[in-house]
Formats: sequence, structure tokens, C-alpha cells
Amino acid sequence: MPTLDQIRRDIASAVDTARATTPLAGSITNFVTVDFVANAQLAAGGSAAMVYLPDEGEALAAMSGAFYVNLGTMLPSHEQTMCRTVDALAELGTPWVLDPVGIGMGQVRANVLAHMRTRPPAVIRCNASEAIALAASWGLDVQAPAGGVRGVDATDGVDAARDAAIALARHTGGAVAVSGPVDLVTDGHVVARLAGGSPLMERVTGFGCALGGVVAVYAAGATPLASALAASAAFDLAATRATERTAAPASFKVAFLDALFEATSADIAANPLTIEEV
Amino acid sequence: MPTLDQIRRDIASAVDTARATTPLAGSITNFVTVDFVANAQLAAGGSAAMVYLPDEGEALAAMSGAFYVNLGTMLPSHEQTMCRTVDALAELGTPWVLDPVGIGMGQVRANVLAHMRTRPPAVIRCNASEAIALAASWGLDVQAPAGGVRGVDATDGVDAARDAAIALARHTGGAVAVSGPVDLVTDGHVVARLAGGSPLMERVTGFGCALGGVVAVYAAGATPLASALAASAAFDLAATRATERTAAPASFKVAFLDALFEATSADIAANPLTIEEV
Amino acid sequence: MPTLDQIRRDIASAVDTARATTPLAGSITNFVTVDFVANAQLAAGGSAAMVYLPDEGEALAAMSGAFYVNLGTMLPSHEQTMCRTVDALAELGTPWVLDPVGIGMGQVRANVLAHMRTRPPAVIRCNASEAIALAASWGLDVQAPAGGVRGVDATDGVDAARDAAIALARHTGGAVAVSGPVDLVTDGHVVARLAGGSPLMERVTGFGCALGGVVAVYAAGATPLASALAASAAFDLAATRATERTAAPASFKVAFLDALFEATSADIAANPLTIEEV
Repeated sequence: MPTLDQIRRDIASAVDTARATTPLAGSITNFVTVDFVANAQLAAGGSAAMVYLPDEGEALAAMSGAFYVNLGTMLPSHEQTMCRTVDALAELGTPWVLDPVGIGMGQVRANVLAHMRTRPPAVIRCNASEAIALAASWGLDVQAPAGGVRGVDATDGVDAARDAAIALARHTGGAVAVSGPVDLVTDGHVVARLAGGSPLMERVTGFGCALGGVVAVYAAGATPLASALAASAAFDLAATRATERTAAPASFKVAFLDALFEATSADIAANPLTIEEV
Repeated sequence: MPTLDQIRRDIASAVDTARATTPLAGSITNFVTVDFVANAQLAAGGSAAMVYLPDEGEALAAMSGAFYVNLGTMLPSHEQTMCRTVDALAELGTPWVLDPVGIGMGQVRANVLAHMRTRPPAVIRCNASEAIALAASWGLDVQAPAGGVRGVDATDGVDAARDAAIALARHTGGAVAVSGPVDLVTDGHVVARLAGGSPLMERVTGFGCALGGVVAVYAAGATPLASALAASAAFDLAATRATERTAAPASFKVAFLDALFEATSADIAANPLTIEEV
Repeated sequence: MPTLDQIRRDIASAVDTARATTPLAGSITNFVTVDFVANAQLAAGGSAAMVYLPDEGEALAAMSGAFYVNLGTMLPSHEQTMCRTVDALAELGTPWVLDPVGIGMGQVRANVLAHMRTRPPAVIRCNASEAIALAASWGLDVQAPAGGVRGVDATDGVDAARDAAIALARHTGGAVAVSGPVDLVTDGHVVARLAGGSPLMERVTGFGCALGGVVAVYAAGATPLASALAASAAFDLAATRATERTAAPASFKVAFLDALFEATSADIAANPLTIEEV
């Protein structure tokens, strides 16, 4: 297992690499939060582009260092676009991030998720119930790994999805980031928990989507695990700082994006973080 | 007729109930202001989700305490989605809010509005000309009710639609909220007028849409009249407070959402309000 | 060639006319930045409306003083909508603004751009590489006009597209605005360069789109050249002022829109500007 110091260095490196290289992270993402996703990606040092048509998805995949696919607000054309784009990403070997928002709702989303099972994402960004639902829909064998003991505390939300997240990470060979009051990130071997953030994140739409978009920015130049950890730590830190400036949601969102832009890689890497081996 | 005190208590109760229960108010809404709608719903204490596909509309209707349908920025798939979702809501008995924005433009919108005539919304949120156009398109008999005298003053905008709003409310059995410098809200028996707000609301896109979304949040736990009054009063108060912080539109929008989040139910219920019986 | 003083008077007049008349500038624009476009149009004194269906595009064209067509985030229905709307605008003689974002990506965009070649926009708003790509796709003969010498300096970005912009302007009979650290605006006879702006504009999505939307607001009441110059100058000035208030992107966007709303026509007309005859 990597040491905590190694992980912190990987986080700092992911952040610095994005800022040094301005990677293009293309997206197919929902209409509600698309502006927030793009602005978070830009604040993190990346470049953003969004598409919805099949041939544009393939073309953007070929131009992108990493890609973000968010299953919110599907349209009829999304099924073909998402499937063809994921195929192109698999062929290119380009890492991509999946946000399975809305899992369980509607046939288009079900078809797309079934298609993705054998062309898996590098990182899955989700909440606890989505992780559990996705592992079930992909028929993964979810069980407590040896040594795994589920805690009953403030982190209960994400810990309920701990085993599902581990199973998903082992299936994809990538990483899974489960968002909650405490965030859980795993690559199937290490389980990290990150503190920080703010309850105000529940009173603004799109923090989860924006997080997925920033994971993709980092994933263009870092491992899935380091990308998921770096984005989660950056969001926890920026949200913590934003709560020092305001206690209301709209000014919080502005302060958050400003803080995401301003945070140094050292500060992000120093965000509260614990790890366990599984 | 309820007394003004009763109405103020109903407003406070609608606000408090939403904050205590975090009701899900699903939406089919336009692409321009969808982020504003969701963030206003969250600031008011509700939960937001947006969809565009027919089976997702039906599924979201079944999960929602109330629903919001805004006719802006139609796509080809919207006709089937809106009609099937409204059918599902009627069958479920779930209250929903209609914003007939763009009425008179295009065949899809005309078809959807015709379909809604016999599956009417609990609340219609619109401006004066939209109320008049909708009453005409549904073939309602609009006439000044007994005792009704149309004023000629600063409220002329909404008062031009007073009789149409009353006819719409009587047709739907719900409430109608007509937005303007003074807002008019009626259930066909009581006509209320609410003061407050700001001319800057005309220099920011989406205040009407956001208002409709917040009416839906309240409608999950209150009567159509109380929901329409509470949302209108909350918007008037929050906009008034925002103008005390800034005189320019983008910072006004931020300050407005913050104020909507911060306002107490007592403050909202105390917003300037008059009532007449019709 | 007009004098610099005449040009400054035309800029001020374009700004004042928009504020005095609140012209409706309809749009077909991308989903990422549609809220920013609408709010920028409102801040500049105009009125905004967005559509996506063919018959709505035609209807909105007939109601609009000018129109904005942005090629980002295409859907299947966009091809017919954009082509029919452009046809309607041509028949009406209504000026419209094209943003060829994403040129070179996908078949729908290629088909739409080919259709626009013989129904040209009044103003093209783009960056340097898009200007070069559009001139090539329309088969224009791009060459350095007599007296034209391409500088090698901080303005190299837009100057690389100087000859393409001139060719595009002569083909359309309108104006072209090429955005960069220094902005280049030409009607094929005068080439103007405008200074100002901020590097933070690269860290917020949609400044180019919002600029195109504001050009359309001005184009309802001014020449293509004056509209392109006025919008570019207004954006340069507002961004310069916003950088005096903040150094981070999200608060910069808020400050920018506020400054766009607050700037006087005299201040906008006084923004740094040089002209050359070609």
C-alpha cells in the first residue's frame, strides 16, 4: 500500500500537472449543471468542451486528454452518443469519468449503463446509493473484504457503499469516489476517507457533477486514484474555505469556485485524509 | 373569505413545511434558466431534479411531492414527455405548476397546452399577457366578476390580467400567480396583491421560472393558494433585501438567492399583502 | 475611412440605442453558456429569448430586432432549426450574428455552415482559428490586402486571422470580430484593434458566446461594424473594471456582468482603440 506521504505527493502532482498543461476534458453532461461543470474545470486549470451528437462525441474523445460522462437529463440522442463515445474512448485508451446520476430511472440510462459494463470508466464519481445501485446493476459480487469493518458514525453514508465501491473499483481496474459528508475514494486496494466540505453543498445544485468534471481534468495527467483523491481534496478544501467567507448558498458557490482556483497544490494535498488497506 | 391573518399563517406554514421536509419537486423546464430554478428550489429548502424523456418524466412524477412544467425551449421530445408526465401527475393526484412561457409560439407548445386543458395544473405562474393568452387559448369566459373594478395605477400590468387569472383559477380549481411590479395571486375567490421586488429582476433572466419552481416546492406541502402566495412573498422579500446590498444585476442575483435562503417564514409572511374577495 | 472620433460616436450611439429601446435579440445558442448569454444581453439593455425548434426559430426571428446563432452543443433538430431560421432572417432582412464555435467538428455543424455561406450573417464573432477555418470552409480567397503588414507582437493571436477576417467581412458585407488578448474588428475596409479585457476571461466559460449575444443586441439598432466594436469595447472595459475588484474567476464573472450593466456609453466609447485602413 502506498504511504500517506506518497498519496499526498500524487495529489499535489495531479493538481500541478493540470495547471501546467491545461488538458482538454470533454464532457457529455446534464443541462442543469453544465455551466458549473465547465467553470469548475476551468478553475482547476483544465479546458472544457461539451457535446451531445454521436459524431461530435467521437471527435471530442479524440481531442481530449480525459472525458466526463454524466447521465443526467438524457435526450433520445444521448444513447447513441454515449455508447459511441465510450467505444471511442476505449479504443483510444483515454481515461474517462462516469457519474451515474439518475441510475434506475428510464430505459435510455439503463441501456447506456449496460453498455458501459464492459468498457468501464477509469473513475466512477457518485453518492452512496448510486454506488450500491451501480454495483448491483452490473451484477458485481459485493461483500465485505477481509479486514473490512463498517463503521457506524458520521461517515455512515459513504461507508454503507464501501464494499460496493471496492467491488466497482476492482471490476473497472480504476477508482471510485463516493461523495458524502466524509468522502470515500478507493481503487480496490486502498480506501481513503477525506474530510472537509460544507453542508451548503447540499443547497447548491451540481457539486457532484462539478467534482466529476474536475476528476476528468486531473485524469488526463494522473492515475485514476490520484485524480479522484485530488479532486475530492480540492473540493473539500475549497468548500471549507468558502464557508469562512459566507453562510448562504449563492455567495458560497462563487466563493467555492474562487477558492478552487486559488488553492495551491500543497494546500490541497494537505487536506484531512486517512487511508486503510483492503 | 380567509382573513389576512389566516393567509399570513398559511404562508408561514408553507415555508416552514418545505424546510422541514425537503420535498422533491421534479421539473421539466427550459435550458436557459434551469440552474437558477434548481438553486432557487434548494435555497427554499426543497430538492430538485430535472428530466426530458417521457419515461423519466413519469418516473420522476411518481417520486415527487409536486412538479414544475415550464414551456420554454421546447425540443421534439418535449411534447410526448410533457403530455405523459401531466397524465401521470393527474392519475397520482400530485399537484403541479405550469409556466406557459412562450405561449403562442410554435406547434409543440400549442399541442401541449391543449392537452393540459383537461388535466389542469394546481398553480399557473405567468405574467399578465400570458394569463390573458392562456385563458383565451383554453376558451374560458373571461369577464369582470361581480364587484370587480379594474384599477388604473402602478399595478396596471397585472390588473389587466385580473379577470383572466380569476377565470383560469376557477377553471383549474387551483391558483394563479401573475408576476409584475405588484404581483397578483388568486384562487378564483380571493385576489391578493403583493408588493416588493426590484426592477433589477428584469435585468436577470429566470426570476419567473425560479418562482414557478419554488411554488412547486411549497405545493408539495400546502394548498395551491398558499404555495403561490408564499413563493411570491418570498421572492418579493428576497429581492427587496438584495437591492439593499447591490444595484447591479449579477451581484443582485447572488444576493437574492442568499436572501431567499436566509429569510425566516415570519419575515416572508409579513411581506406587504392586500386581499379582496371576488 | 471614418475617423476615430466618428467610430467612437458610433459606439456610444449603439450602446445608448440598445438601452433606450430594449431590443429583443433572439438566440439559438449552446446549452453550456445560455444563461450567461441571456444575462449579458439583459445587462447590456436588451431582451433575450432562446429557442431550438424550427417553427419557433422562424417565429422568434420575426419578433427580433436582431438574432444570434451559436453553433455549440448541436442536437439533431438544430440543423433544420438553424437553416430555416437563417432563411427567415434573410427574407426579413434582419441582421444576425454567427458564432462558429466548434467549426470542423461533426456533420450537422458542417451542413449548417455550408447553408449559411449564401445567407451570410451581419457579424461573425469568433476567435482567430475559427476565423481562419470559416474562411477556408467557405472557399474565400484570403490574402494580405494592399498595405497590410502582419505584426509580430502580443496581438499575434488575432493578427494571424486578420486576412481571413477581412475576407469574411468582404464576403458577408458585414463585420467580423476576432476575440483575443487584443480584439480585432473589421468590416473589410477598416481594421480596428481594441485593448482591455483580462486573462481571467479564459478561466470562465462563455465570454465569447456572451459577446456574440451582446453584438446581436446592439445590431438591432446599429451597423454591423458599430455593433461589433461597441460589444467588444464594452466587454474589454467591463473585464478591466472587474479585475480591479477581484482576482478569481467566479467573482470576476459577477463583477463583469455588474460592470457591463453600469458602464456608461461614454466610458465604453473611450476604451483603447486603434484603426487602420485596408
